[in-house]
Amino acid sequence: MRIGILGYGNLGRGVECAIKQNEDMELVAVFTRRDPKSVKILTPDVPVANISDILEYKDKIDVLILCGGSATDLPVQTPEYAKYFNVVDSFDTHAKIPEHFANVDAAAKEAGTVAVISVGWDPGMFSLNRMYASALLPDGKDYTFWGKGVSQGHSDAIRRIEGVVDARQYTVPVPEALSAVRAGDCPQLTTRQKHTRECYVVVEDGADKARIENEIKTMPNYFADYDTFVYFITLDELKRDHSGIPHGGVVIRSGKTGWNGENTHIIEYSLKLDSNPEFTTSVLVAYARAAYRLSCEGVRGCKTVFDIAPAYLSSMSGEELRKNLL
Amino acid sequence: MRIGILGYGNLGRGVECAIKQNEDMELVAVFTRRDPKSVKILTPDVPVANISDILEYKDKIDVLILCGGSATDLPVQTPEYAKYFNVVDSFDTHAKIPEHFANVDAAAKEAGTVAVISVGWDPGMFSLNRMYASALLPDGKDYTFWGKGVSQGHSDAIRRIEGVVDARQYTVPVPEALSAVRAGDCPQLTTRQKHTRECYVVVEDGADKARIENEIKTMPNYFADYDTFVYFITLDELKRDHSGIPHGGVVIRSGKTGWNGENTHIIEYSLKLDSNPEFTTSVLVAYARAAYRLSCEGVRGCKTVFDIAPAYLSSMSGEELRKNLL
Repeated sequence: MRIGILGYGNLGRGVECAIKQNEDMELVAVFTRRDPKSVKILTPDVPVANISDILEYKDKIDVLILCGGSATDLPVQTPEYAKYFNVVDSFDTHAKIPEHFANVDAAAKEAGTVAVISVGWDPGMFSLNRMYASALLPDGKDYTFWGKGVSQGHSDAIRRIEGVVDARQYTVPVPEALSAVRAGDCPQLTTRQKHTRECYVVVEDGADKARIENEIKTMPNYFADYDTFVYFITLDELKRDHSGIPHGGVVIRSGKTGWNGENTHIIEYSLKLDSNPEFTTSVLVAYARAAYRLSCEGVRGCKTVFDIAPAYLSSMSGEELRKNLL
Repeated sequence: MRIGILGYGNLGRGVECAIKQNEDMELVAVFTRRDPKSVKILTPDVPVANISDILEYKDKIDVLILCGGSATDLPVQTPEYAKYFNVVDSFDTHAKIPEHFANVDAAAKEAGTVAVISVGWDPGMFSLNRMYASALLPDGKDYTFWGKGVSQGHSDAIRRIEGVVDARQYTVPVPEALSAVRAGDCPQLTTRQKHTRECYVVVEDGADKARIENEIKTMPNYFADYDTFVYFITLDELKRDHSGIPHGGVVIRSGKTGWNGENTHIIEYSLKLDSNPEFTTSVLVAYARAAYRLSCEGVRGCKTVFDIAPAYLSSMSGEELRKNLL
């Protein structure tokens, strides 16, 4: 199938790498809002085009993978490009998913395309695992822990503080909370009891470290509700030790079965990711395969990971899947 | 939806318990090959009927859950009852799944019913996780570890040895193998390197323990390829310490992404189950919901966990799923 990429940041580059690993896929073009000449991609002989020329590719692309951000890009782009292409996005503003779904569904149904939204690992694979586990163990409780991993939003928040040159924030699950959940105790956990926040901060010469540390630790929404640890390091140390974008996390459901709930079961799904964007885009690419197949079957409208049978993601046939993986 | 149970052993009882936890389900009848008067079930006011009367319930049951064994019951029962009912089974003889699928598919398509086969945790949830993970990380390798848990087949094999009164066999993953896989090393592991077998054995007074231990450890297929540990205990100890049917295991996929495979990701799905049959039946019941819904949509034929969109398993609507779990 023929894939287009819209947006060439970490996600766009991740999609490009993932396409290389899937023999049934071909990258047709990368679209950008920048001057195409300024964008160098990894794949030889594939054009970079300005987004204004994208409709010229309407019949040359089976699925367009949208690699913009959830704050301002995707709410506009996904309904817009669903008018012309099968699309997949990684919209991750949980609270706005119903609205985004409605907008995209209307556009895709009218145009006769398939649009898969909120694909990645959370939302995405974590959502799937919350859903499967809750369907299997209705008398239970689920927990999602994120990390250890880099939160881009929290790192940005630290960078906006006066005197800060650069920063990297890690979200870290609290080991005691994880242990209690894994033991089937079904604890009630506060925000503070679930995660801690580790901040590696580079400051300007002569900056007031005490003030900066205090501003971080008391920042509402971002840090005030957490046990936050601030470490001042040099720019060289930041580059040497914190240049990756690792992430991951765990979804755990603990539930009871038996006539009187006498047996406890623990279902756990965990991810340890060297590169958050590359794993996210690996998921996007698998769902691009599904979008294309659904489209070929005449399906129309907006879908999420909940709506798509697993087999659509795999390059194997039904026979191969039953023989090799069932 | 109205559920029937065929077969009232550990699985049948587990289905009965699971139905109690799902408000959209009702147990209509339990069918048995035994004298119905000899079978006492847990649910008040639900009839136990002989299997010979099952066709009287043709229009009173939406899904019949088949709780027989894979060796001799299901190969006959699933195609037979798919002629009259939507059915779900837990057929778990991996090598014979393609043949079973073909037989059941033909029967269900001709009758216009939905049949979901090989539902449980392996095959079932473990299969799903092998499939999702391999679709997301095509450049990788997956590993399935079982246990710590009771293997009924291995326990039975020990019981057949002369002088053995009773036995319980636990399959146990080798910690070093698990660690190597979790570290992303993609090791090649032999059968012996993946699992050990722990046997708790009760023998007759005066039995030759050395001979029994040797017969166990050298038994082809069951034990010879494993590091096997034999512990002789009393019948009281067996009843006190080994009366449960716990099981579980782990599916791990380790894979590379990036232009040159420079990043490693680990996806892990694990189950810790107090009761193997009760978890298996929790999965059966969730797929019974899916079978009924698919049938209502006019779908016909044999399906596996790969073919069924996750949302069909949940009692929540699409809107609720997107709002609460995505």
